[in-house]
Amino acid sequence: MAWKDPEIAALRDRLAYLREPGLTLTLEEQRTTYEAMASLYSMQDGWVAEEVQAHGVPAERIAPEGRQLGAAILYLHGGGYVMGSHRTHRHLASQLGHAAQAFALVPHYRLAPEHPYPAAVEDAVASYRWLLDQGAPATGIVLAGDSAGGGLTVATALALRDAGLPQPAGLFCISPWADLTQGGRAYEHKAESDPFCTKAGLDDMARAYLAGADPRTPTASPVHGDLRDLAPLLIHCGAEEVLLSDSTRLAEAAGLAGVEVRLEIWPEMIHVWHWMAGDLAQGRRAIAVAGDWMREKLGG
Amino acid sequence: MAWKDPEIAALRDRLAYLREPGLTLTLEEQRTTYEAMASLYSMQDGWVAEEVQAHGVPAERIAPEGRQLGAAILYLHGGGYVMGSHRTHRHLASQLGHAAQAFALVPHYRLAPEHPYPAAVEDAVASYRWLLDQGAPATGIVLAGDSAGGGLTVATALALRDAGLPQPAGLFCISPWADLTQGGRAYEHKAESDPFCTKAGLDDMARAYLAGADPRTPTASPVHGDLRDLAPLLIHCGAEEVLLSDSTRLAEAAGLAGVEVRLEIWPEMIHVWHWMAGDLAQGRRAIAVAGDWMREKLGG
Repeated sequence: MAWKDPEIAALRDRLAYLREPGLTLTLEEQRTTYEAMASLYSMQDGWVAEEVQAHGVPAERIAPEGRQLGAAILYLHGGGYVMGSHRTHRHLASQLGHAAQAFALVPHYRLAPEHPYPAAVEDAVASYRWLLDQGAPATGIVLAGDSAGGGLTVATALALRDAGLPQPAGLFCISPWADLTQGGRAYEHKAESDPFCTKAGLDDMARAYLAGADPRTPTASPVHGDLRDLAPLLIHCGAEEVLLSDSTRLAEAAGLAGVEVRLEIWPEMIHVWHWMAGDLAQGRRAIAVAGDWMREKLGG
Repeated sequence: MAWKDPEIAALRDRLAYLREPGLTLTLEEQRTTYEAMASLYSMQDGWVAEEVQAHGVPAERIAPEGRQLGAAILYLHGGGYVMGSHRTHRHLASQLGHAAQAFALVPHYRLAPEHPYPAAVEDAVASYRWLLDQGAPATGIVLAGDSAGGGLTVATALALRDAGLPQPAGLFCISPWADLTQGGRAYEHKAESDPFCTKAGLDDMARAYLAGADPRTPTASPVHGDLRDLAPLLIHCGAEEVLLSDSTRLAEAAGLAGVEVRLEIWPEMIHVWHWMAGDLAQGRRAIAVAGDWMREKLGG
């Protein structure tokens, strides 16, 4: 396949090693690789990270130095529920915060297999409660996340609803992993063109996270839930990812429940291309588009 | 169900008669009723309609009086392929034209059962060719339509591609009927809340239009087609319509084929609420949002 976007073609060349048949990494090596890749990307100019404890959850508060922002993004990082941290997503959280004119809180939620479902949901809910307890109104918070963190965004919104907590102003999901059964037509169509994700890899991570829980549990796989009364949803996915159908089925589930949805499918883009905005003009554009949406939902 | 939007609640009260079990209208009566309902709504101030023949297809060219607009919307009206005309959609075409700053061409394409599939597709393609022959560049045309006309929009784009004609600048589908098998989860979920469409009614219209053709033929049911190389797609649907899953599955089919998609699901809104913008602020807002998208695609 010839790609029209030269940046995505170049990035694919650099990522090709990830799909070499000989490549087998232990979970520890995967975690280290992820952190190393993230170190290639820079935070938004003038933004700084500060460690906080959000009701017991270690987290980073990321904000422009010397400037107060009232609105907040609670950002839930990706990594298949088994890797990733505030370190791997500091740069993206700061870029999204800049675009939305909101500070970001990135919890280092507990990971599987050490801490399986529902540890991640519990930590996300605790972080949200902490923001509320700091005085942030729910209408001043957007919940956002990528990949597993995108599924976790909707799972957390369900948990908030069921706990009687107010919904945030909006939910922004980047390439969400929203079905831990690995269902959907895109797994077949995009197996060759997705440089990151494979059904086998996601099966492994789902097994580690679920640790025996039903993969159709709504707070693990929100496409199987009743999404009634959730906040408005913005979904971004790339046209070249095996998780594409997670996005369209999440949009359907939300629409069936009466929730406001905007879904955007970006041609040629790959799993969580926003994360690689340093290399991709389309990543910067997607962040700007999402920033406009978040600002609107935050009333700004 | 209690609706938050008082305008949609009031409109539903007025439309309730359409779902009375005793109501049975002949096709001729349905056609007359549709025309009568349309007469309740007014064209955009200062816009006028002029009859033209578009390569043999009777059509209306709708434009602001005394002002030349270079860009065009080829607008394909709804009505289940069995009713509707330039008259029923003059007002919506003028409102969309105003929002997009483009004149509208509304062909009175041939209707079933008198003229079954593929007559509508042929007439839409002829109308597009006529616009090109009038000197409009493809990049200055948006194809748009509602309901059956929304499915026909994508069907026409497929036919253009397969005929080697250039794609338009964009495709805008309002509540598209994109699967003439009446598949999708929304038929079950929204049977009670959709004031217009029922599976039985759509089955009848599909039978009349298809006249024995396979309902999975891509230029009749684009969700079953390979949508490769189609122009960018904007899809609007209401959260309270049985055709909601047509929209999400159309988004999926387009994304799987690498096409740019933006899908918006509007809470509480009903089938083709834009058509009733005279009664609904949300209809006017949806037209404005679509206008921004069309203007961007038209390079303006």
